[in-house]
Amino acid sequence: MKENNLPIGVFDSGLGGLTVVCELSKILPNEDIIYFGDTGRVPYGSRSKKIINKYSNQDISFLKSVGVKAVVAACGTVSSVAINSLREPKVLTGVVEPAVITASKLTKNFKIGVIGTSATIGSKTYSKYLKNANSNFVIFEKSCPLFVPLVENGLTSSKDPIVLEITRRYLIDFKNQGIDTLILGCTHYPILKNAISKIVGKDINLVDSGRETAIFVAKYLKNSKMLSNNNNGGKYSFFVSDEIESFKVEADKFLKWNAPYSLEKIDIELY
Amino acid sequence: MKENNLPIGVFDSGLGGLTVVCELSKILPNEDIIYFGDTGRVPYGSRSKKIINKYSNQDISFLKSVGVKAVVAACGTVSSVAINSLREPKVLTGVVEPAVITASKLTKNFKIGVIGTSATIGSKTYSKYLKNANSNFVIFEKSCPLFVPLVENGLTSSKDPIVLEITRRYLIDFKNQGIDTLILGCTHYPILKNAISKIVGKDINLVDSGRETAIFVAKYLKNSKMLSNNNNGGKYSFFVSDEIESFKVEADKFLKWNAPYSLEKIDIELY
Repeated sequence: MKENNLPIGVFDSGLGGLTVVCELSKILPNEDIIYFGDTGRVPYGSRSKKIINKYSNQDISFLKSVGVKAVVAACGTVSSVAINSLREPKVLTGVVEPAVITASKLTKNFKIGVIGTSATIGSKTYSKYLKNANSNFVIFEKSCPLFVPLVENGLTSSKDPIVLEITRRYLIDFKNQGIDTLILGCTHYPILKNAISKIVGKDINLVDSGRETAIFVAKYLKNSKMLSNNNNGGKYSFFVSDEIESFKVEADKFLKWNAPYSLEKIDIELY
Repeated sequence: MKENNLPIGVFDSGLGGLTVVCELSKILPNEDIIYFGDTGRVPYGSRSKKIINKYSNQDISFLKSVGVKAVVAACGTVSSVAINSLREPKVLTGVVEPAVITASKLTKNFKIGVIGTSATIGSKTYSKYLKNANSNFVIFEKSCPLFVPLVENGLTSSKDPIVLEITRRYLIDFKNQGIDTLILGCTHYPILKNAISKIVGKDINLVDSGRETAIFVAKYLKNSKMLSNNNNGGKYSFFVSDEIESFKVEADKFLKWNAPYSLEKIDIELY
């Protein structure tokens, strides 16, 4: 197959990265996509740097073994924690850079908030990239370790008292700090957008890292002249490391589409 | 070493099983204990039966390779889901049977509640064992998927509105159902005992599966004449599959002791 017509490889610790697949399918409907979700070892966000590196390298190995033209880390934790060790041709540590570029354009008062998993916030990667973009930015970071469990257990309604109380606990300080832009630094968080907006206020710009990653990947492929010219493209193959049944139940929350896809379980420990 | 003086092997998906180690150390202070916590792949409770079986077998393999006189699954999920496939000499699928025996003795009105992870409740193992104990028991089961993330993120106070609201959501039905006994079917849940009591009422018997497991293991070793006669016993070796730093921070919550211990990271995927 011509390299341009190879699929784009996308991976995440679990299913959050499907928000990126969903956006990619809208922007680049001709592209084939292979997705790997490490459902047998999710979540990554509370683990150490070493383990996140190890798991990410296995995920990338798997996607490369299937044959892809580019690998996208559609996971805030992987992108923040493993951003340096994963620098290699064809591997895009999604999430961080695209979100930083967009936040930098949106902020008027230079006060930017960042939320993510414990590992993401602990890595201080967003802070570093934002400061590099503009040293006058004032950055407020907050880890939100219960957001992923909330989303994965279907508690996402902005009317649910549990969702609101947890969101309030994590985000209330941002109001006093006067940020005008908030980076959702984990691909699960867009699912909680309404609750987040309710707490921080509707006038705050929310930067959806999943969406920004998809736009970034599209630009990258276009600039590198790597877009597919296959008119029969738009095929989706999903792989997971736990049983496929739970994927079927969960995927709808993230995908919100009806495109056909193939689905297979693999043993990620072999990669 | 004489087999009796070999350590007891204990494992859990993460750190919840340390509540069993803590109780064992009180009841059998002479015994050496080797603990494995699969911190690199925690939690198990939201995964499929196949993956839970695979991970449990690796955990058992590791403990056997170090040399132990018995292996205790100090994990409600493993005990419920893998209870049949793990039946082999020297392996005790802790948690379920001891908790069922105690609950059967405590209940006066024969209405028993069971809480656990999604995998535990989905397996219906507690129901089956309780019905075997007495077919007149009426059993109410409820999965509490956010309890483990709460405990692992330090949200355990019975005065915290988040803890109380989540506990209320999960347990309020038990009040109407009129249970008099509630099995805490996950070794993390005793940490939430105060909040649970506040919601279901102080007159409900709470069966702490971690404590019951420790008592069960002590009886088993005594009856099998396998108790240690080493007066210098009471050594604790802990192994984890993620970095040891996070263990140090977390372990205090579960252990509440100052006994010295050794601590090492292993690669569980090799077993």
